[in-house]
Amino acid sequence: MTVPIDRDRFVATMQEQAEIGGTEGGGLHRLALSDEDREVRDWLTDQLEDLGLTVRVDEFGNMFARREGTDPDAAPVLVGSHLDSQPYGGIYDGALGVVGALELLRTLEDEDIRTEHPIEIVNWTNEEGSRFQPAMQGSGVWIGEHDLEEQYETTDEDGNRFVDELERIGYRGDVPAEPQEEYEAALELHIEQGPYLELDDKSVGVVTGVVGFYWGATTFYGEADHSGPTPMHYRNDALVAAADVITQIRRIPSTLGERTVGTVGYVDVEPNSINIIPDEVTMTWGFRDPSDDVVEQAKERAVAESEMAAEREGVDWEWEKRMRSESVDFADKCVDAVQGAADDLGYDNEQIYSGAGHDAAHLSKFCDTSMVFAPSEDGKSHNEDEYTSWEDCYKGANTLANAALRIATPVE
Amino acid sequence: MTVPIDRDRFVATMQEQAEIGGTEGGGLHRLALSDEDREVRDWLTDQLEDLGLTVRVDEFGNMFARREGTDPDAAPVLVGSHLDSQPYGGIYDGALGVVGALELLRTLEDEDIRTEHPIEIVNWTNEEGSRFQPAMQGSGVWIGEHDLEEQYETTDEDGNRFVDELERIGYRGDVPAEPQEEYEAALELHIEQGPYLELDDKSVGVVTGVVGFYWGATTFYGEADHSGPTPMHYRNDALVAAADVITQIRRIPSTLGERTVGTVGYVDVEPNSINIIPDEVTMTWGFRDPSDDVVEQAKERAVAESEMAAEREGVDWEWEKRMRSESVDFADKCVDAVQGAADDLGYDNEQIYSGAGHDAAHLSKFCDTSMVFAPSEDGKSHNEDEYTSWEDCYKGANTLANAALRIATPVE
Repeated sequence: MTVPIDRDRFVATMQEQAEIGGTEGGGLHRLALSDEDREVRDWLTDQLEDLGLTVRVDEFGNMFARREGTDPDAAPVLVGSHLDSQPYGGIYDGALGVVGALELLRTLEDEDIRTEHPIEIVNWTNEEGSRFQPAMQGSGVWIGEHDLEEQYETTDEDGNRFVDELERIGYRGDVPAEPQEEYEAALELHIEQGPYLELDDKSVGVVTGVVGFYWGATTFYGEADHSGPTPMHYRNDALVAAADVITQIRRIPSTLGERTVGTVGYVDVEPNSINIIPDEVTMTWGFRDPSDDVVEQAKERAVAESEMAAEREGVDWEWEKRMRSESVDFADKCVDAVQGAADDLGYDNEQIYSGAGHDAAHLSKFCDTSMVFAPSEDGKSHNEDEYTSWEDCYKGANTLANAALRIATPVE
Repeated sequence: MTVPIDRDRFVATMQEQAEIGGTEGGGLHRLALSDEDREVRDWLTDQLEDLGLTVRVDEFGNMFARREGTDPDAAPVLVGSHLDSQPYGGIYDGALGVVGALELLRTLEDEDIRTEHPIEIVNWTNEEGSRFQPAMQGSGVWIGEHDLEEQYETTDEDGNRFVDELERIGYRGDVPAEPQEEYEAALELHIEQGPYLELDDKSVGVVTGVVGFYWGATTFYGEADHSGPTPMHYRNDALVAAADVITQIRRIPSTLGERTVGTVGYVDVEPNSINIIPDEVTMTWGFRDPSDDVVEQAKERAVAESEMAAEREGVDWEWEKRMRSESVDFADKCVDAVQGAADDLGYDNEQIYSGAGHDAAHLSKFCDTSMVFAPSEDGKSHNEDEYTSWEDCYKGANTLANAALRIATPVE
């Protein structure tokens, strides 16, 4: 037996949230701790209070609300995602998982269903990591992966401190930013952000784990000279060394694994003038794969390529680790609940690894966890063209709701 | 017979000007139309008035002062350079040529030498092109290469208009910014900004011409996707295409000519985030060579490489011309005067092409022109490490002075 959520209200709620920080291009610009973030948090608070729920805000701005269960000793099931967006990102990334959780709570209220375990909705602070780093900051602090005070001191590119911006938008709460008890499970609905579900013509992804990744950066130090009178053999061009490595990073994944990816997303060139040979170039690099060994090999290849490029061009170099995330295998209990819900609902589905990091990856270190994926058209995300049909959004939300119900009221 | 300038006074004057806008790192930060530029212009005015000369300032801020000759019908010889600097540039670039010209005038006064032709000193406005573009702006307007009113409207990166800044520092003069008569010749002393004189162990460069250059830019348009879940074969990465071209531009000069150079100095990556595949990358490129044919071939290679790189990566692309400067061959009359002066003075010298653009390149389109080069240690310029020994500075200034005398009072 499945409990259907209200499709029309669900779609209307998705559209409503998309207006807060909505862009002319049909996307969303709702950076963490911005005015738009405050507005959408206020909006979520209103929705939850309309359901008679009390919103708890922790010291790091993470928002929770609990609908009690029938068993006072039962551990809660946590359901949610994040409401912040990338700069000029899409309207589904994050919001789908929070709206899905909200619709679950509304449906339980409509249908007067009492679950055995409490169900708790969560909106994590700064999942995207585009304004303040690292990504998944709120869930990372909550599970103890990051230190609260250190994360308070992170700054955006204008030098604004996280903690000041959190205060400014009025979401520095009193509740300690850490679990107050054991949790039965955590579930998160999210768009896939890759093309596999669409390629395989599936509506629902049953997420079995998250690939590991390694982010690093290499900086090359050459010599800034006038681009005219400096002969080619006199040059130590930091940008040429960086270009060498960018080219290699395009190639490395194809030598390692079918699902290995490697990316250079960020380059900073100094002095960045048409007429001066660049003397300092920093480039980031990142690799992902379901196998931690493969990720480690890729990282070693990037460092080795940096060294070779520096030697070829006669420049100094250094590299640094930016972030490392081990691959995650989600708990069978939660994967089975998602699988069972999708099957019961009759949705075409397949098991899939997540290529992106998610708050759920953090939570899996603390309690049993899984995720539901909705297909992303053409695999696009993190831009205004991000698109998932309302039909697929609905199927994802319905799968989430029924997977949560399977855990919150177990059938003996 | 040669007339020597006063070495001690010359060095002291170089040191004096270097204090105006001098940096802690021993360099010079004296951007065009800044407060420091006003101060050094006021200082130059004082020096010239002390010699009993009248300073003329034209509508574009170019400064002139004339010491009359004995023949009222003889055309003047123009001698000078520029007093503006690069951001945190060196103390020799430009200033050496103005101080050399000033010492020439002082020496003539000391020695009570009357030349046949008048000698005119000039300080050109905004040679560097770092605050307002294009470079060599003042001499370009003066010879009619650029339109005065258009150049007035150029802005710095804070949006300040050229004409407003020129008014602000009090150097928008009344004299039309164009030649009021024919000129007999123009001579400019400058540091080499390249390593050839030092490599060949020469103190003086007799400059026979200026290399031509072509500046362009290629922009690649790919697709911005999340760096995690997007498979490698799904990517259209604008930065990978740009890196391909940067690598090729390092190689192209070596296939074309001994003195061909090619540089990518500027790269802009959008959205420039560690976690997003870049969707728009603009890169500039530039080539220089004494042969305009070689420069044209290099430019065609850069465009062809851009096309190939775009095809390989499946991205769109376009390119645009930024600036083209034909190579210049200086007039035999002036080259011979510089050569003769250097030989008479007994200085080790060699004929050399200039790899950088100079005001003299503009002037050569209007009258017979040449330049004198002083060696740059390790070829460095446009930064605080720029260095030329006082001995070499002095030899350059003495060569300039005596070359000017050879033209201003021709020996039958």
